[in-house]
Amino acid sequence: MKDKNKSKNLRINLADSALSWNNIEEKKSDLVKIKQLLLSGEASFTGWVDLPESFDKEEIERIKSTAEEIRAKCDAFVVIGIGGSYLGARAAIEMLGENSTGPKIYYAGQNISAAYHLELIEEIKEKEVCICIISKSGTTTESAVAFAILKDFLIRKYGETEANRRIFAITDKDKGVIREEARRRGYVSFVVPDDIGGRYSVLSAVGLLPIAVAGIDIEMMLDGAREIAKNNSFESDIAAHYAAARILLFDIGKHIEIFESYEPRLFYFLEWLKQLFGESEGKEGKGVFPASLQFSTDLHSMGQFLQEGHQIFFETVINIENPQSDIIVPRNAGQALGGASMNDINRAAFLGVMEAHRKAGIPIITIDIPELTSYYFGQMVYFFECACAFSGYLFGVNPFDQPGVEAYKSEMLKVLGVKG
Amino acid sequence: MKDKNKSKNLRINLADSALSWNNIEEKKSDLVKIKQLLLSGEASFTGWVDLPESFDKEEIERIKSTAEEIRAKCDAFVVIGIGGSYLGARAAIEMLGENSTGPKIYYAGQNISAAYHLELIEEIKEKEVCICIISKSGTTTESAVAFAILKDFLIRKYGETEANRRIFAITDKDKGVIREEARRRGYVSFVVPDDIGGRYSVLSAVGLLPIAVAGIDIEMMLDGAREIAKNNSFESDIAAHYAAARILLFDIGKHIEIFESYEPRLFYFLEWLKQLFGESEGKEGKGVFPASLQFSTDLHSMGQFLQEGHQIFFETVINIENPQSDIIVPRNAGQALGGASMNDINRAAFLGVMEAHRKAGIPIITIDIPELTSYYFGQMVYFFECACAFSGYLFGVNPFDQPGVEAYKSEMLKVLGVKG
Repeated sequence: MKDKNKSKNLRINLADSALSWNNIEEKKSDLVKIKQLLLSGEASFTGWVDLPESFDKEEIERIKSTAEEIRAKCDAFVVIGIGGSYLGARAAIEMLGENSTGPKIYYAGQNISAAYHLELIEEIKEKEVCICIISKSGTTTESAVAFAILKDFLIRKYGETEANRRIFAITDKDKGVIREEARRRGYVSFVVPDDIGGRYSVLSAVGLLPIAVAGIDIEMMLDGAREIAKNNSFESDIAAHYAAARILLFDIGKHIEIFESYEPRLFYFLEWLKQLFGESEGKEGKGVFPASLQFSTDLHSMGQFLQEGHQIFFETVINIENPQSDIIVPRNAGQALGGASMNDINRAAFLGVMEAHRKAGIPIITIDIPELTSYYFGQMVYFFECACAFSGYLFGVNPFDQPGVEAYKSEMLKVLGVKG
Repeated sequence: MKDKNKSKNLRINLADSALSWNNIEEKKSDLVKIKQLLLSGEASFTGWVDLPESFDKEEIERIKSTAEEIRAKCDAFVVIGIGGSYLGARAAIEMLGENSTGPKIYYAGQNISAAYHLELIEEIKEKEVCICIISKSGTTTESAVAFAILKDFLIRKYGETEANRRIFAITDKDKGVIREEARRRGYVSFVVPDDIGGRYSVLSAVGLLPIAVAGIDIEMMLDGAREIAKNNSFESDIAAHYAAARILLFDIGKHIEIFESYEPRLFYFLEWLKQLFGESEGKEGKGVFPASLQFSTDLHSMGQFLQEGHQIFFETVINIENPQSDIIVPRNAGQALGGASMNDINRAAFLGVMEAHRKAGIPIITIDIPELTSYYFGQMVYFFECACAFSGYLFGVNPFDQPGVEAYKSEMLKVLGVKG
């Protein structure tokens, strides 16, 4: 099955985008230059570009063996992180599922809700627990608070020595409070690469350790990313085409991109996409506003707006061609639906929406994914990372910085009476 | 505590909206006319307007006693519905929590995912189960499919006679396949009112039965709604002010409203808001595009865009003034955060974001909610329903119809080969 699937790749369909190939080609010279810049390594924070190819084999082995150790040692694994230190791993784990022979994966520090963290502690208190703190600086408020609470919990439960064996850290290679603490207390630790921003880091240790703990094949994931990286000519570079389409649609007043999926398991992947594009493009008053909808659920809430509301959006549908599980609807559902398969009905909803929205003149881009495997997760991640880099540069912004994220933090620290 | 809280109400703060009271007053004559229309009962589908006042006392007692019966009889209660037959109840139950002495509440038919429904059956198969089908017509595909699957499951588990005692129906009072089946099989049933659309129905049996099964006080909820309904003069009618603000902001190019909360328990309330506004306004090429963000989580993904991206949005923050539970951060978190309370830190994030976004010139509307109780849930629902009615009419559309929702359904039925 592995080999069969590898014969197909992620594909992009622009037939319903209101754009022609000539439109896309208008952007060719810009896109070719951007590609050269990305491959040159001259731009800062482009370490993700050759990561799938250059990933240190020994580091992959160390991630895998540490994940095995964690899987053997605990039945609750708490991943502490937020933003780029959270969404990528969660997107993969929710999409692909946790292998039931390992620990259940929990998340902490992705909010500052006391109610949430009290419930989490209640849920894991009788279990064997390991935790993983993911923070480059160690100073992010949410993860620092959650780490303090969970470390305190581990020390009370196991004592200091054993707690230190149950804490794993993914942080800066040299600097910061977590690195310093990892050295002092002897945590097993991994490195957040210097030249990769949080939102582009899921295929580094940041994403791969938690993903491997969930029992997912991380080497297949890197294989998938490498496959997309092979698109070297402009004509075969679907990420460049998609980026061109986004900008061209923005230019005709389509200021919102709605990421859509018919598979609830993609919820966090869509969240990851919103960070990737929103944080990369949203600067200097620019950027496509990224939103997400889960179909068919949200057809029953936002369907009316899409069909007939203010037309300032385009749709990007992530279409899973072969969902894995299925149910045949019992005959008691009546003539229309009884005996049909749920996946066929879900697919009919997808095709029906495509047709109805096409008739309404809504631009639609479809990304076809052969199936939900770690190989295709790798393809999806690398495809969208490339597209986002292209698209940010086409907007004329730096897609790898985030100059605006400190503004509220410094105001928040003033409120807390802390020196920034 | 009940009496103390009743002395405070939901409040709206427009100080950071870029609007003055003079701006709001420009819309006064239109809003006064709309209010008269709503109170007159002349417009179709305005049954929700006097629902909190006119709700039949015997019907409330029957909802409460049926909920008690369900609570005594099962430990898994599956609510089957989608859109307006789903989001309101789920918003209340997630916001207020399930009382642990009753059944766990599950949801089905809110998507067509086979994987989702297979996991649900696996989860409940050893439990004592009751189900509730909520569908006015009985022909909504998602709920029809899920109902067929769960009915089949109940019949296999309990036999026909006992299964019929474990099925509850909320549907049209006379017509449709569910009403007909309820009569034939003797299900205990409730009515989806004729003059209330799905997105305005949470304070009818549609929402109140599942909410009561979760152990939540539905009479307090109706009390809260009645309190907001008392705002009779234009000067005290905060829903009218909010509606005016939305339209005025739209007119200056703020085409997206971002609903925001710092409390994860409000996730489904924000989803309910998106349906309420999106489906009411999104027609004739009009409407504010509704989006939602969960803070502080999404500050780490969309924070950059908000601060510096394309400024086509305004923010509506739902601020919970007194969160119930709290955690004191352990001293090991260091000088800055150790010893602080999580709620204080969360509040500092709220104040920090307000200040940073104010400085960036983003229009912000704040809705202050004293605390998370059923009384305030009732206030919130009625406040937003009124605001949405006002706002739709100000846009010049009918806020109570949804002419565009059939378009994809008829295309979908063509794909399935079913006559529409």
